[in-house]
Parts: sequence; structure tokens; C-alpha cells
Amino acid sequence: MTESPYRSRLDAVRDLMRRKGADALIVPSADPHLGEYVPDHWRIIRWLTGFTGSAATVIVTDDFAGLWTDSRYFLQAAEQLEGSGFELVKLKVPHSHEHIEWLGNRLKKGSRVAVDGRLISASHIELLQEQLKAKNIRLTLKTDFIAPLWKDRPPLPGGMAFAHPLQYAGESRADKISRVRQKMNEMKAGYQLLTSCDEVMWLLNIRGSDLGYSPLMLSFAIVSTDQVLFFADEEKIPEAMKADFDSDNVVLLPYDLLEVVLGALPEKSSLLLSPSTTSAAILSAVPKTVAITREISIPARLKAIRNETEIRNLRDVMIKDGIALTRFFYWLGKNVGSGEVTELSASAMLESFRMEQEGYRGPSFETIAAYGSHAALPHYVPGHGSDAKLKASGIFLLDSGGQYPGGTTDVTRTIALSEPDDEMRRYFTLALKGTIDLAMIRFPYGTRGYQIEVLARKALWENGMNYGHGTGHGVGSFLNVHEGPQTIGSAASGDIKTILEPGMLTSDEPAVYREGSYGFRTENLILCVNDSETDYGRYLSFETVTLCYIDRNLTDASLLDDNELQWLNEYHERVYNLLEKELNTEERGWLRENTAPIGRENS
Amino acid sequence: MTESPYRSRLDAVRDLMRRKGADALIVPSADPHLGEYVPDHWRIIRWLTGFTGSAATVIVTDDFAGLWTDSRYFLQAAEQLEGSGFELVKLKVPHSHEHIEWLGNRLKKGSRVAVDGRLISASHIELLQEQLKAKNIRLTLKTDFIAPLWKDRPPLPGGMAFAHPLQYAGESRADKISRVRQKMNEMKAGYQLLTSCDEVMWLLNIRGSDLGYSPLMLSFAIVSTDQVLFFADEEKIPEAMKADFDSDNVVLLPYDLLEVVLGALPEKSSLLLSPSTTSAAILSAVPKTVAITREISIPARLKAIRNETEIRNLRDVMIKDGIALTRFFYWLGKNVGSGEVTELSASAMLESFRMEQEGYRGPSFETIAAYGSHAALPHYVPGHGSDAKLKASGIFLLDSGGQYPGGTTDVTRTIALSEPDDEMRRYFTLALKGTIDLAMIRFPYGTRGYQIEVLARKALWENGMNYGHGTGHGVGSFLNVHEGPQTIGSAASGDIKTILEPGMLTSDEPAVYREGSYGFRTENLILCVNDSETDYGRYLSFETVTLCYIDRNLTDASLLDDNELQWLNEYHERVYNLLEKELNTEERGWLRENTAPIGRENS
Repeated sequence: MTESPYRSRLDAVRDLMRRKGADALIVPSADPHLGEYVPDHWRIIRWLTGFTGSAATVIVTDDFAGLWTDSRYFLQAAEQLEGSGFELVKLKVPHSHEHIEWLGNRLKKGSRVAVDGRLISASHIELLQEQLKAKNIRLTLKTDFIAPLWKDRPPLPGGMAFAHPLQYAGESRADKISRVRQKMNEMKAGYQLLTSCDEVMWLLNIRGSDLGYSPLMLSFAIVSTDQVLFFADEEKIPEAMKADFDSDNVVLLPYDLLEVVLGALPEKSSLLLSPSTTSAAILSAVPKTVAITREISIPARLKAIRNETEIRNLRDVMIKDGIALTRFFYWLGKNVGSGEVTELSASAMLESFRMEQEGYRGPSFETIAAYGSHAALPHYVPGHGSDAKLKASGIFLLDSGGQYPGGTTDVTRTIALSEPDDEMRRYFTLALKGTIDLAMIRFPYGTRGYQIEVLARKALWENGMNYGHGTGHGVGSFLNVHEGPQTIGSAASGDIKTILEPGMLTSDEPAVYREGSYGFRTENLILCVNDSETDYGRYLSFETVTLCYIDRNLTDASLLDDNELQWLNEYHERVYNLLEKELNTEERGWLRENTAPIGRENS
Repeated sequence: MTESPYRSRLDAVRDLMRRKGADALIVPSADPHLGEYVPDHWRIIRWLTGFTGSAATVIVTDDFAGLWTDSRYFLQAAEQLEGSGFELVKLKVPHSHEHIEWLGNRLKKGSRVAVDGRLISASHIELLQEQLKAKNIRLTLKTDFIAPLWKDRPPLPGGMAFAHPLQYAGESRADKISRVRQKMNEMKAGYQLLTSCDEVMWLLNIRGSDLGYSPLMLSFAIVSTDQVLFFADEEKIPEAMKADFDSDNVVLLPYDLLEVVLGALPEKSSLLLSPSTTSAAILSAVPKTVAITREISIPARLKAIRNETEIRNLRDVMIKDGIALTRFFYWLGKNVGSGEVTELSASAMLESFRMEQEGYRGPSFETIAAYGSHAALPHYVPGHGSDAKLKASGIFLLDSGGQYPGGTTDVTRTIALSEPDDEMRRYFTLALKGTIDLAMIRFPYGTRGYQIEVLARKALWENGMNYGHGTGHGVGSFLNVHEGPQTIGSAASGDIKTILEPGMLTSDEPAVYREGSYGFRTENLILCVNDSETDYGRYLSFETVTLCYIDRNLTDASLLDDNELQWLNEYHERVYNLLEKELNTEERGWLRENTAPIGRENS
């Protein structure tokens, strides 16, 4: 019996810890940009423990090695960690920092904790320090226990950058830089540091090929009053782009020179940075004489508001994505009885339909294709032994999205694979009421997402139900599928101070989950738009831009009020009208049936 | 022509300022407890400027003297300030600190600003310091320019304290003190400072007679692990109460000894205080070696949750108040045509009906009795020349409340004095929908007030309308009519982090105002109660405890959905059933008519 490679890696890490005098090591799942997706080079936890899930924290001490992850990964982690020497620690609340409390309880006074300061945000470090100071525990940030041990480590990704031309961006690089500088001037800041790749991409009107689901290039930037310093691997920049940069005074510098340049910022200069996306290592490179303002970055706020061109492109993309979805669901209906369709094969088929669409660049996140009771898990992803066959009964939940130069999509539909029972129709419709009620609201300018979220939950609350996740996340424009600062949720998530503004895109995804049985979610993207001007001021509303039929069989019209029913019928009419031209006769007929008006007699 | 006395007071103040080297003086309208109502002794602004309104800030410089107040006082202030040497500065946003910006713009670098540190909160001072530091402006807190000049100053009020017995309090003083100590222990605090009189009253189960609308006694307290130090004027404490205090180890100390005692707190001890209700002077009396935790006080959080006894008493009080209101509106209907009824005489008549109720102690705030276009001003109060006669046409808005040992009330009704037109019915009903929709919501435990506020605004938003004030404020139990920490509002007001808990009472008062024409508001008090336990956890809802008919003539049933109409009819049924026993035959018949079910044909 050969020993697990993970066990010897753990031994080697412990050996290094002992030699460097660290009592505990924290390994986050992150790269120096602290974004959602991480390149293989930085998938340290996978190398160290064998766990392949996307979200985890590892802690190693002399006599303990554990991996904290959330409920969607419990089964997978238990399996993958077997024999690795690491034990699974189940998070009670997803994305929380429960390991910090564990450390505080477990470690002795005066212990030393090591963490790679490049992989942890400045705000997270403050939380750690706050919680550990009572025990006088010291944090060491300048230690890398992994690099010396990881022999066959994948290099940093080498994907080429490509232009995001004006026809998609809608605003030139020079104009964007000038708007950022204007805001910097208002905020009395000499420099704006950008550590999130999506912010750099937006500013420079480029995209990259370094990560799985988001078209990003690993890079940093510093905007000053006369230059943009762009830190990236020169090899990955096409020559034409370099010339283009010159004309806008964008200076290309080596990727790993950021900290050196920050360290040379002039005395008494002022720097804007975002503490939740700036690593502790980067923050510590800034000289003490520089005045730091901690704020969500200017590009993050500007890019959240789509311009007219981006909105026009988004509407086009929704037609493309809607056609792929329509073809997929038509195909699924015809094939689900064959006994050959599984969660994974259905995902693959959806991907092939999307690939037929012009400009499609790939999925915007890992597809959630969940049959029956799998749909009760909000973040279920097939694979790792679980790939259910779809029978002609029960429900199927599909949450997927695509990347197109004109926009990023994210859509969920739940369909019945045979005649649903009343219970299923009730759950589905109560969640759907939330999707519709949020989409229908008109609200005054100045309203924040958390103020209107209850509209998505009210029908469920009235029936003693709820869902444990937020209602709406921001969505980027050919960037990240999850992108703030706007959010439709309560205080816990996002920046609740951000007001909703015309041009902002968010998801609208209330749901209901019945553990062990099924789950129901209808998710559309909704675009905030100008509505009207009254004696009481300026009013905004939402346009639902996602185009895909909503299962009439699962809809219990008796639970919808007149306004909701009218919304649904008008939505279906619009879906049909915008998609039918591109469909063949059979598909068109099928869509006509599935978007036919629902009357009161349906109930 | 004699000179205004205010002009010579202003001259004297300026003279003192010059001698003490102050470039500007800020005079807040507050006393050292920083509550809503202020005794005559502390009505410095009235003495200095002649302005009698309740909310204002005065600033005096060498060449300027101004009074900042909000729109409800613009007319009154303009009149009262005439010839005083003070000019009116109109606040754009009520209760905001716009004078700070003015100071920052007006004063030279290095100026000295004086403010009596006893009359300004610790958190307000921080705001001031933050905004003025750019100009290196220094604040002097230990100056009293008023005491040496105000010759005939009224003494501090001498109202006697009285017991708030167990039959009303529902929990003994000893038990309350013990619960506070338990929380202090959890928060690792050795001392809890109480500066708000309502918190002291609640803790000690007493009430006072020092202020106009709230049964408070001017007092402070410090809770330690074995004593409660109670700072109050001994003269005002009945002998029996003193003996009673002894047995609970409550130590009576002179009112003005608080700062001395705080200054003697042991080294390294820990003190809880609330920075928004603790004055800068009191905070500065705390030795630097004491660890201060800034938090809403423990009693403030505990007393917000009414116990069973308080709830039972509240329901009784609502019947009493409801009978007084019913008699008043019956009387009004019969007399409004006489041409003799005015806003002030109507207020007086309402007061006489309340005085017939057992236990009634007086109004809980200044009655808003607003005829016609006066109702478009959310905080209109008749008087100062404006006392409209009520004609048998148009609308009348009445916002009033009473203090009873069993509870504090606050209720608004808007009635039509003749057949209303469709426009009036529409405005009234759209605002009423908000009152009803908020009252009907069921929500999971853990929900915050700001999450559900939109339900009160949605119908108005849909029609392009809104109101500029919050939706719901907390209400004390025979204490202040405005009392946190709970609130149903957006981020701007109250402590938005406070979750709603069973036993909390708030108002529910959406409204619509049409400047120059009329205004409509229906305000009930709603009690948060346990609703049910489901698979998804614990659910709460509201019980509307206010009992007073809602004008059927103003209600357009076609604008109410079935649930809202059912709520209104059931509410009216309950109002009638709970009030009819105490009414005479005529009043009963009148109430029966005015609470009769509304059918769809009404619309």
C-alpha cells in the first residue's frame, strides 16, 4: 500500500514550520488578486490536500491539519481528504471565518501564526489580528512554506490578452482614464491602486485568458495623474496593443514589480485602495508616509453602471443565450425519456448549443445541473461520482451562464420532467412570485438594494418559507458573473450603501429548497432603468433582460395575483417575439406552446 | 422704540466671547441628557433669541448670529427672530448638522469654537472635530457663556418622582438590575453608565415629573457589579422610595456629582456608555485608564422588549385611548359645521376626552391638529398665529398621543369633513395600503426593520409618490413616545442593526403630502409578536394595537386588494368589539356605522 502523497506533503510542511518557528499555518484558497477564480499555479490547497473544491481554508498545526469548507462540499471533501492526514471541518455558515475562532481557542498564548500575506486581504488580516490579540498571538505574513516544496508546480497562466473594442466597451480607454482621474481629483487622491483584474480589464478595454470562467488577465494597475502603470506579463500582450497603450500613456511594467513601485511612492502622496481586494503583502509595501484612503475603487463603481453601448450589446447577447437555452430545453424534452441524459451530459449539450452562438467564449461559472433532490442544494455541481440520470419524472434545475463580448449571462430555470403535483407547483410558484415582484417594483432614485429585497421573499415568508442566500448579485460586462458593488440583499453581503442606478445589472433569484426532495429557483438578470419623473422626484425600475421561458406546468396561476400573471404573460410574449426568428419550425412551435398566455382557468 | 432684549443678550454674549477668545459659539437645543424634551432651565435658545420651537442650533460669531431650524418652523422663526439680531438659516434636511459645514466654510484657519460640552453628544463632537480639523479649528468645551448672563433663569425642575409599580412594570427593580449585570458580565464590563433619563426610570421602576411630555426625572445612573449609583435631586424622591432603594442597594447621590464619581473610577476598569446620548463633558470626565466600550446601553435594549404585563397593560391602554378618540371624532362630526371649532380648540377637546380616562397623565407629544393644507406639513403644530377654523369641507389630520401608566400612545387619523373627491380618496388609500401591508407581513426571526420598510412605501412608489420621513419609530412604555433602538426605516435613522423581536412596539405611519392642498396619514402602533415555527425556523408578525376607526369615506376599496380589504374589515370589527361596551348608545351607533364592513361595491 503506497502512502498518500498528501501525507508526505503535510509532513514536509510541518517540518518547515518547525524550522521557521510557526505554531500554525493558514492556507487560504486565493491568488494575489483575491478574486473568485484562481489559476492552477495558486491552487495550493488542491496540491496540499487533494481537495478540488473552489472554497476552503486549511490550517496546519503540530498535531492537527484541517480543511474548512461549506455544505456544498461536505461529501466531496470527506471523500477526497481520505488518507490525506487532513480532516474535514464543516462550516456552519458558508464563506464565514470560523477557522479564526478555532485558532483563538486552540492556540496557546504567544503562539506564532504564519500565512502568506499575498493571499489574504488587508481587511481579513485586521479581523485576524483583532481576534487573536487577546492571546497575544503574532502573525507572520512573509512566509511561503509551499514554494520550496511544490516541485511540479504549474507556471502562472500564459493566456494572451485581447482587445475589448469600442463596439463592446462603448467608451474609449482614454475617456475611462480621464473619468477615473476626475474622481481621484474629487477625492483628493494622487494614486488609485487596482488589484482586481476585472477593474484593470475594464479600465484598459482589454480582456485576458488566464482564468477559467472570467476573461481576465492577471495584472495590477496604478493610475496616477499623468500615467497608468500596468503590471502584467509582457509576453501575453500583443504588439498592436502595446503601441495602443503608448498613445494613452499606459506604461507596461513587469507583473511582479508592483510592490517595488508602491514602495517608491513619493512621501506625503495619497493612495486610494480597496482593503477587501488588496492583499496584506501589497498594503505593507506602501510606505508609511503615504496617506491611504480605503474605498471601493473608482473603476469598480464606474463599471457597475453600463453605458448605452453595453446595454445594447447586453440585449443582443440575451437573444443569443435565449436561443441556446430554448434549443437545449427543446432537446431535453425530446430526450429525457431515453434514459441516456445525465446531469453532466445535459450540461455538455447546453454548452454545445451556446457554442453555436456567435462570439460565445465559454461558461461564466460551473454549470449547476441538478436533478431531483440535488436541486435542494443551492450550489450543487455534478461530478465527483454524483451524476444523476434524468428520468421522465421529478424536476430539473439548471443554473448556468455564458461569456460573450457583449455581456455575461446567468440564468436559472426549474422545469418539471413530467406532470408535477400540486405541492411542487406551490413551491415553484411561491418562489416565482418573488422573482416577478422584485422585477415589477418602481422605486425612487437613492434606493438601496437591501430596501427592496423583501419583495423577493414576501410570498415565501407569508408561507413560512425562505432561502438562505442573497437575492441578487451584480453581474459584470464580459467580466465576472459575480461583481459588485451593487447587491440586492441584506446587510450581510455586498456594500449595502451602494444605491441602485440606471445601467446596473443584478440577478433576481429567489428560491425554495426542500432538503432531500427538490428545489425551485427562477433566476433572471434585471437591468436598472430610468422610469419616470414625478412631483416626488426621479423614479427607477427594472427591465428583465434574460430571455427564456418559465415552466407553465410548474406555475399555479391561482397563487399569482393579476399583476403577476400579467407580467408573466407579457414576459412570455416578449421571449417568443425576440427569439422566434432564429428558431426552426419545430423549435418555434414548441416555444409558442411553452410561452402561451396562462389564464385564470389554468389554476 | 425699546430695543429687543435679545439684541442686548447677543451683545453680552459677544462681549464674553471676545474676552474669552472664542471666534464662534455653538448653542444646541439640549440638556445634559440629550433627550427629546428639554426643561425651561436649559431652553437657552429661547432666552437668547426668542425662538420657541423645539429644534434649533444657534451660532454666534463676531459679525454673524444665526439660527438653523427645519421647515416646520420657518414661518414661526422668521416672525420670532425679527429684531433679535439673529437671522434664520433654513435647514435643507431636518435634524442634519448643516451648521458644521457653514462653520468649516466661514471660519478662518486656527479659529476657536466654543460649545458647552454638557449639551453636545460625544459622537456629535467627533463629527465636529473631524470636519473642522482640516482648518485646524480648535474646540473649547468647558465654556458656559450663558449662566453668567441669564439673570432670571428658571431653576431645574423640581417635579416629584413616583413609583412605577410592578403591576405596570411587570419586573422588579432587583430583577432588572440583575439582568443588566448579567449582560455586563457577558460584555466584560464592570460599569454601565446611564445618561438617558428613560433608561434610569426603566431600571429603577420609577417615573418623574420634570418634563413636558415624557414622565421623566432628570437623573443619571452608574450600574456596578454590586451597586446602582443614582444621581438625582434628593428633594424630589419620596421617603418611601428611598427606603425601597436601600433594600436594592441603589445609592442616591447628588445630581451634579456624576462627573466627580466617574473621575474616580478605578484604574483599568471597564465602562459601557452610549456615545450618542453621553455628553462630551461626561465622556471627558472618565479617566484615560478606563477602557470604554461604546454601545447602545443594556437597559435601552432590554426595555425595548415589553414583558407580558406591559403588553397586557398596553392593550388596556389602547382601549382607553380608543374610547377617547371615538368620543372626540363623534363630537367633531357633530360640531364641525358650527364654525366654532379650530385646530387648537379641537386639540383641547381631545385632551378633555383623554382626561376622562382613568390613569391618563397627559399628552405624549404636542398634538398635530391640521386642517386642510396644514396637513401637508408632516410636523405642523397649531399656534403662533396659525389656528385654522375647521369648515365642513376638506380634510383634518390629527396626530396625537397620551401617557398612561400602562403605556404611551401615538396615533394619527385623517378624516374627510365632507364628501371627499376621488383624488383625495386615492391619496388616502394609497398611503393606507402601506399602513396595512406593513401590518400584515410575516417575517423570519432575525429580520431588521429596514428590510421590511418598503412594504409601507410600495403602493406609493408604484404611483410615483413617497414621504420624506421614516415609517416607524419605537415607542416607550410610559416613557418617551420616540424611543429606540428598534426602527422601521432605512439606513439614515435609528440603529439599523437592531433586529425586530417579539414585544417591541413601533409606529406604522406611511403618508402622502400634497403641498398647499392636503396630507394623509394613518398611523397605528404595531406590536411585534411570535407567529409560528416552520421547517425554515421561527416566524414573527405584527399585532396592530391602536384602536380607532379609519375613515371609510376616504377609503377607495377599488385600490385595495382582497387581503387588504379583509384586514381593514377585520380591524374595524375588532375596534368596534373592543370599544363598544364603554360607549353610550349614540356613540356606539356612530361607531357601528363607521366600522361597518366595506364591500367591493364601495369602490
